[in-house]
Amino acid sequence: MEASDDLLDKGERATRFALAHVVEPGDPDISDVVDTYGVQEVWQQLRSPDSTSRWARRAAVFDLAAAIGRTRACGARFLIPGDDEWPRGLDVLAGCEPVQERTGVPIGLWVRGEGDLGQVAGRGVAMVGSRASTSYGEHVALQLGHDLAASGTPVVSGAAYGIDAASHRGALSAGASAGPQATVAVLACGVDQVYPAAHTGLLAAVLERGLVVAELPPGEHPTRLRFLARNRLIAAMSQATLIVEAAYRSGARNTVTWAAVCQRPVMAVPGPVTSAQSVTPNRLIRDHEAELVSSVEDVRALLAPMGRDMLVGHEEPPAPVDLLDRDEKAVLEAMPARGSIGLDELTLRAALPVSRCAAELESLGGKGLVAETLTGEWALTHRHGTRRRAR
Amino acid sequence: MEASDDLLDKGERATRFALAHVVEPGDPDISDVVDTYGVQEVWQQLRSPDSTSRWARRAAVFDLAAAIGRTRACGARFLIPGDDEWPRGLDVLAGCEPVQERTGVPIGLWVRGEGDLGQVAGRGVAMVGSRASTSYGEHVALQLGHDLAASGTPVVSGAAYGIDAASHRGALSAGASAGPQATVAVLACGVDQVYPAAHTGLLAAVLERGLVVAELPPGEHPTRLRFLARNRLIAAMSQATLIVEAAYRSGARNTVTWAAVCQRPVMAVPGPVTSAQSVTPNRLIRDHEAELVSSVEDVRALLAPMGRDMLVGHEEPPAPVDLLDRDEKAVLEAMPARGSIGLDELTLRAALPVSRCAAELESLGGKGLVAETLTGEWALTHRHGTRRRAR
Repeated sequence: MEASDDLLDKGERATRFALAHVVEPGDPDISDVVDTYGVQEVWQQLRSPDSTSRWARRAAVFDLAAAIGRTRACGARFLIPGDDEWPRGLDVLAGCEPVQERTGVPIGLWVRGEGDLGQVAGRGVAMVGSRASTSYGEHVALQLGHDLAASGTPVVSGAAYGIDAASHRGALSAGASAGPQATVAVLACGVDQVYPAAHTGLLAAVLERGLVVAELPPGEHPTRLRFLARNRLIAAMSQATLIVEAAYRSGARNTVTWAAVCQRPVMAVPGPVTSAQSVTPNRLIRDHEAELVSSVEDVRALLAPMGRDMLVGHEEPPAPVDLLDRDEKAVLEAMPARGSIGLDELTLRAALPVSRCAAELESLGGKGLVAETLTGEWALTHRHGTRRRAR
Repeated sequence: MEASDDLLDKGERATRFALAHVVEPGDPDISDVVDTYGVQEVWQQLRSPDSTSRWARRAAVFDLAAAIGRTRACGARFLIPGDDEWPRGLDVLAGCEPVQERTGVPIGLWVRGEGDLGQVAGRGVAMVGSRASTSYGEHVALQLGHDLAASGTPVVSGAAYGIDAASHRGALSAGASAGPQATVAVLACGVDQVYPAAHTGLLAAVLERGLVVAELPPGEHPTRLRFLARNRLIAAMSQATLIVEAAYRSGARNTVTWAAVCQRPVMAVPGPVTSAQSVTPNRLIRDHEAELVSSVEDVRALLAPMGRDMLVGHEEPPAPVDLLDRDEKAVLEAMPARGSIGLDELTLRAALPVSRCAAELESLGGKGLVAETLTGEWALTHRHGTRRRAR
């Protein structure tokens, strides 16, 4: 009983810290009593010798000092609702009807990484999908993860094989342009745990450029119910949920349901009707439960205040390269795909006089397709690269 | 002038026959004056020596006897609006705003094949798509063409390489179960012409089990405008238009526009977002201009009076074969894929006692998976075949 009293003296943060250690995340009964009575009252009840709660035994043996030690050991911080860094999107979970037996605002969150979770949540896009993804799904997840992060939209996902991993890897590949919160891995275990074990390197990379988040205390292992509880966090803390690939039966379906419950847009990447891994995205689109997205531009159009209307009836503009004259094209085609080139060498490659070549470079530069480097050489720009890839 | 007078004496059919020889199909000016003044008046005007119409010269040299000879030579019949066999769906084209310079109800139609075009139109589904289709698109077109025809829904398409050809081939593969109008090829040239030349065999096969239709007289060759005119017929005579694969720029887009103008449902098969040939279907679905379909069941649900609601929230039922017991499965697997088998031989193949085998056949018969032939042998039913293929 001493520990309990100590704890209560330390205020709400300590009480939530303790409570989050003894109850299962997303338990509908707990979130119900917490909403009604507050955490202090609930903790006191759990600790009373005559408590009939199924969490009472865990509460009785809870060791605050050891728990603090485990959290400190992995460099995690513990957030509670109201903190600046608290992802406000989670508050939508208050009072929600349970989905597969889980619901409610988390008691608290453990977070590792230098980014600011408050900055991520609400701006991030959840990317979810199958563990048994195809090379197509992984390719698309890598590309979308990259393009989202590169445009300043953090990726939120789990840490499973397949689409989760490809989404994080795509976001991480955006490098510094993604800012300090490229990607967020929300775990169904403690933030010090690695599931699957093969993702040690992936989670280390996520920590370098993003955040690792969990509702479970350090040291805890994942269970089926904990995955289901975790899925509601991914959907609720993101501004939208994007499903890349998922078979007919898939955990990703659960995250999509949560996105719908939270009234966040659901998006899906279509795939071959012959692919078992595209059954769920295609079905969600078919049933108008998700909007079809093919690219980061589609995602952005759906998130923009003007919404999809920006795109409807808006024909794809001709690619800049299609509007070039013959000499401009000759110069562009002579440019190396990577790195830069001097005017003299380019002149030879393009088989044009130096003055003509210089004039065309100027013109291509004005169209944003090439740029002069600091050393006075010329290189293709990202704009040119993107256009080429997109065609 | 004699020919003209003869012709007018022969009534509206002959006048339309002549007029259809001298004007370009889908010409908005012609359909406008025909709607206003009727074909007799228009023909008389064209034939008057002081006509300023650009079709007057063609009308002046029109040779009725030679034209009748060409139509007879290829065994075609000439339909006009009001005929029993006239596809009534085409009447929706009256007074439509032109799409890419073509519009209007055709003056008449040349038809070859034993089926009844009046039975096809309104029940058929147009399948359109790219000439440069991928193996994925062709696979899906074959499957959908088969499944539509096998369930009594004729396929309507062009005669181009790619999706057109695969759709017809799929429909033709349904064999006798498709009935006398498995598939309809609507041409942008005369019904005696073969474009591309490599499709001689395909068009011969279509003629055996379906129909070849054109708005152009025998002997005429296709042009860009004639393809555009033809597309409006495909869309208007079908109850819905299904696009399988098409690149960003594609003639199939034009047919889809006509389906929308005619207020017929538009359906699209999704594909990889990485495939140039799925850009148009994915985009139509994204922009809510087409409904996503993955299978003939999806098509049927959209065409059913109850519509899509039949499917939403309706979980895929287990295939009948999944519900069989061990001995039923043993018997089913011992059945030949084609043709029939006697009880004795089946008993050997299934390695079961005769009485057991007979009992299982009875049971499988009750489930509609096998049927007794007139000679007392047993054969797989269509129902079994479809189920297996669909999985």
